[in-house]
Amino acid sequence: MALPFFYSIQSSSVSSKGCLFLPTGGCLRDKRTSRLAFVSAKKSGSDFCLESKVETLLDGVKWDDKGLAVAMAQNVDTGAILMQGFVNRDAVATTISSRKATFYSRSRSTLWTKGESSKNFINIHNIFLDCDQDSIIYLGKPDGPTCHTGSETCYYTSVLDQLNDQQVVGDKLALTTLSLLEFTISQRKAELVTSQNGKPSWTKCLLLDGKLLCSKIREEADELCRTLEENEDKSCTASEMADVLYHAMVLLALKDVNVEDVLEVLRLRFSKSGIEEKSSRKS
Amino acid sequence: MALPFFYSIQSSSVSSKGCLFLPTGGCLRDKRTSRLAFVSAKKSGSDFCLESKVETLLDGVKWDDKGLAVAMAQNVDTGAILMQGFVNRDAVATTISSRKATFYSRSRSTLWTKGESSKNFINIHNIFLDCDQDSIIYLGKPDGPTCHTGSETCYYTSVLDQLNDQQVVGDKLALTTLSLLEFTISQRKAELVTSQNGKPSWTKCLLLDGKLLCSKIREEADELCRTLEENEDKSCTASEMADVLYHAMVLLALKDVNVEDVLEVLRLRFSKSGIEEKSSRKS
Repeated sequence: MALPFFYSIQSSSVSSKGCLFLPTGGCLRDKRTSRLAFVSAKKSGSDFCLESKVETLLDGVKWDDKGLAVAMAQNVDTGAILMQGFVNRDAVATTISSRKATFYSRSRSTLWTKGESSKNFINIHNIFLDCDQDSIIYLGKPDGPTCHTGSETCYYTSVLDQLNDQQVVGDKLALTTLSLLEFTISQRKAELVTSQNGKPSWTKCLLLDGKLLCSKIREEADELCRTLEENEDKSCTASEMADVLYHAMVLLALKDVNVEDVLEVLRLRFSKSGIEEKSSRKS
Repeated sequence: MALPFFYSIQSSSVSSKGCLFLPTGGCLRDKRTSRLAFVSAKKSGSDFCLESKVETLLDGVKWDDKGLAVAMAQNVDTGAILMQGFVNRDAVATTISSRKATFYSRSRSTLWTKGESSKNFINIHNIFLDCDQDSIIYLGKPDGPTCHTGSETCYYTSVLDQLNDQQVVGDKLALTTLSLLEFTISQRKAELVTSQNGKPSWTKCLLLDGKLLCSKIREEADELCRTLEENEDKSCTASEMADVLYHAMVLLALKDVNVEDVLEVLRLRFSKSGIEEKSSRKS
């Protein structure tokens, strides 16, 4: 593909902010075809090849009548949906090249990269298109809270709680099971500090007695193993694994370690084979 | 709020399918105000109160110029984003009353409930609005695969893998860390069955030797406890917890137990206090 017109930036369609994070160049646009290009100081054959692939990929997206698609940013470790916005071709192209989640603002008619003001970027690990090619997941790791309110995610208003007149202390994030369990344990820990009584709580008993907690963790790990050794049924294994997870998460709370930190350790590890990883730890 | 006109169904705006799952009545519409109402055979004061709350809540959503907002369905246990669609007032009202994720089809101009054909409903546990009141999470439990292709979710096309020319065998779902680790372990298990060699793999060693696996699980649980007992730093705790999780997940794979099943056990348990839950298990 010959690209004679690529080297004139059209700032009206690609904002300087939108291209701020390009490591080696910028997003440029062919005046005749409205297609994007990535340029580096020395443009190699592989750069042209990548451009072509990105263009083909963007051609495959079913943009709506305004040239937009929906994009959701999701935390790669916890699975939390951080925010949702809209994207055009330039926003996705910029996200691919900068690896920072970038959207199109419908009200301001410009690209914007989440974090360009707050520095709480969402660092992209992968991008997924749905079966209809009109919806996108930005799977990434946020540098800090995503919401402009300072909340971890933009989703902290529970419709059903409002309808049930449930009093919610502070924000109640849209948490999935593991994160909700972690939140519940952290609430029990906070109740101990503030001397609130709350409900009777096994979690509080464990938080107050590290010796009991450790004996339970060892016991539950042993019981999980016995479901394999004694060929117990699947429901026993699921139940014992739930026990292991819960008790271990109480220990994490006592040590002020987030489940997200553990998941990050796992993610970084399994990018190598286990044997390679174990060797690297030994060295 | 007097509702003299509520009892005439306008099928053009609220499809029979959209209201199929209302447990006690249907979605009805006031001809003058275009507002929805929920009716039961005997309409009580609390029904009117709920209607009023739902109306107030729907008034607070920032619908776009077509009366729509974005809605994403997320698996309450795994955190997987299952699908994304658009919703209007009727779709959200129907979802609230039926507790089945319901959307508005822009191409067919009708409500549709995910699962009305396939029976793979998404059973709603909570609904969240974002900080801008124009984006919604349906947090729910799917009865089966969500995608019309039979895939667990609609997001199985990795943009970055396509750009990197990575060969993907089968669908590669947009998996977050825990699910991706589970998937990787299941691949190692499959390689054992098909006698594929693949990379050297600690996971395969563990899968082939249950005695080694169980000794590792007990050992890692002990090491996790020692980070508390011996006051080791937080990074040790995170690392040991990652070891516990990984080895326990290999055991789950050997027993054909899904992490999702374990998370479901946890979710069902922590809806009660731990002490109440332990009592109920003993009885």
